[in-house]
Amino acid sequence: MPVPDIDAALRRALSLAAQAIGLTDPNPRVGCVLLAADGRELGAGHTQPAGQAHAEVMALRDAAARGHDVRGAIAIVTLEPCSHHGRTPPCCDALIAAGIAGVVVAVQDPNPQVAGQGIARLRAAGIAVELADASTADVARELNIGFFSRMQRARPFVRLKSAISLDGRTALPDGRSQWITGEAARTDGHAWRRRAGAVLTGIGTVLADDPRLDVRLVPTARQPLRIVLDPQQRMPADARILQPPGETRVIGPGRADLPALLAELGSQGINELHVEAGPTLSGAFLDAGLVDELLVYQAPLLIGEGRPLATLSPLAGLDHARRWRVVEALPVGADLRLRLRPT
Amino acid sequence: MPVPDIDAALRRALSLAAQAIGLTDPNPRVGCVLLAADGRELGAGHTQPAGQAHAEVMALRDAAARGHDVRGAIAIVTLEPCSHHGRTPPCCDALIAAGIAGVVVAVQDPNPQVAGQGIARLRAAGIAVELADASTADVARELNIGFFSRMQRARPFVRLKSAISLDGRTALPDGRSQWITGEAARTDGHAWRRRAGAVLTGIGTVLADDPRLDVRLVPTARQPLRIVLDPQQRMPADARILQPPGETRVIGPGRADLPALLAELGSQGINELHVEAGPTLSGAFLDAGLVDELLVYQAPLLIGEGRPLATLSPLAGLDHARRWRVVEALPVGADLRLRLRPT
Repeated sequence: MPVPDIDAALRRALSLAAQAIGLTDPNPRVGCVLLAADGRELGAGHTQPAGQAHAEVMALRDAAARGHDVRGAIAIVTLEPCSHHGRTPPCCDALIAAGIAGVVVAVQDPNPQVAGQGIARLRAAGIAVELADASTADVARELNIGFFSRMQRARPFVRLKSAISLDGRTALPDGRSQWITGEAARTDGHAWRRRAGAVLTGIGTVLADDPRLDVRLVPTARQPLRIVLDPQQRMPADARILQPPGETRVIGPGRADLPALLAELGSQGINELHVEAGPTLSGAFLDAGLVDELLVYQAPLLIGEGRPLATLSPLAGLDHARRWRVVEALPVGADLRLRLRPT
Repeated sequence: MPVPDIDAALRRALSLAAQAIGLTDPNPRVGCVLLAADGRELGAGHTQPAGQAHAEVMALRDAAARGHDVRGAIAIVTLEPCSHHGRTPPCCDALIAAGIAGVVVAVQDPNPQVAGQGIARLRAAGIAVELADASTADVARELNIGFFSRMQRARPFVRLKSAISLDGRTALPDGRSQWITGEAARTDGHAWRRRAGAVLTGIGTVLADDPRLDVRLVPTARQPLRIVLDPQQRMPADARILQPPGETRVIGPGRADLPALLAELGSQGINELHVEAGPTLSGAFLDAGLVDELLVYQAPLLIGEGRPLATLSPLAGLDHARRWRVVEALPVGADLRLRLRPT
């Protein structure tokens, strides 16, 4: 008799979870696959918008719709099933009630207060629970990196996006920046905006470029909140960033305290914060050590004199420079996409 | 009976040719493998320093030393065998005299005046000659890109090397640049210097950094010529670049005419010219469109204010910027190595 291919089911569950990007915030993106003892897939699903069904319930409903009996089945889930009553009943209870015999969990719940409670509850009900290997857990964590950040650090994961030339310029000296990178990079940038609960910029960028900062080059079920730091209340009434789709929050008057702002956004359910700003605000985030990931599109051209990626405090020496780790270097059209994290 | 694996032999011949880097200038790097009709290797070799044996003769000698009869064998060579009397007799004649039955050529001779003559001469002697596929020909051409440039354009292939931060800085505002990139990148940079017939810099770099610009982090059989552009004769007598190993040419007084200089270096047998200079000289090469490859080591750190890669003429607009093509993006230690060519 064939046996369940748990690795394949984990990959499928992760791919289902990825379909929930741009859909479930502030809830995590979760996928679930139900396998019969002989390995057949009985049902599958992913988390719905907040307040609606979680992945496990979606998979159980799918199995029911397909006429399958799930008693004795194995559930493969990308995140530890919840054990608490939130806007929906706990998923653990749904799995137990359905007669599931075993559960494979890609990664534990990031909230230190609840981690392991879902697993304990399932085991107490006589269900065999296994954890995936470390590399699968990493993939599952990355998929919800903002949710993990909010649960563990009470603030969003901050991704700073920039489009630069090979010599590090974001624009000509007069500010013209259309276009340094190509269409593929701009589309890819919208896919990263879509991941975010909020997109943040400064009033300088609004006044210079009048950007919309919405998600339009890739399909999305919702728009991230747009946030503009406007310490001197210079926002024009007809700025495009104030127009639909999506909502916009203007913060001012007064200089925003960035750590306090991040804490506030965390408490409001922002998992990933996408910063797309000029050199002053980018420099403020960088100087304060508040950037968790640099997302840099690098175009293969030299500009010479031009605007910098960030205005930073002077370095006492090169050994004082904060070092980053390149976690990805990938061609996107004619450009390169680099992702870097602090070492 | 086994048959010769021509693809494997081509790979082996190319790898032998690569061993001739830093050895054969101004002659090309060539590898040769002799296979029996049943596929056994009878002999192999690569080009020796100029005036000594070419790859084909080395392979024939190797077969003789191993006691093999090469009559009826197949010769696999990475470059069309020469048909003219230079410092050594033509390789075609050596192959014909040895009774070789067939020759596989990775790429034709780049000199338009002689291309195909070696192949014609072999065929006239009754030897079957085949050309490798286009992708193998590309690899073979890349190995001798400077030789091809000199034969076809009467000037060296110009590779401009720079080590920059993610924001395009080569040094702090006061010029300190040790170290932006890591040890692996610096060692790799010496391997590229070794490929070059000459390493070129400007007097500004000599005065600021007192570099040696020799090859010392990787083993080499010879040192590239070092060239310093010194229009105002400011070279200090005790500059390290004037000291052994290797020779140094100081060009001045007067501003060098770069295209004329390249033509002169080509006529003197410089295949690859490695430019490792400050922003002014780098900018002059770039503005003049004389750079065939950018070799950029990019370190994962942000410097803020600092020295640029190149001082370039102002751009009228971003659509006036010369676009490059990323031909390689490779991690080297914690840094990235980017190689770009003009589109």
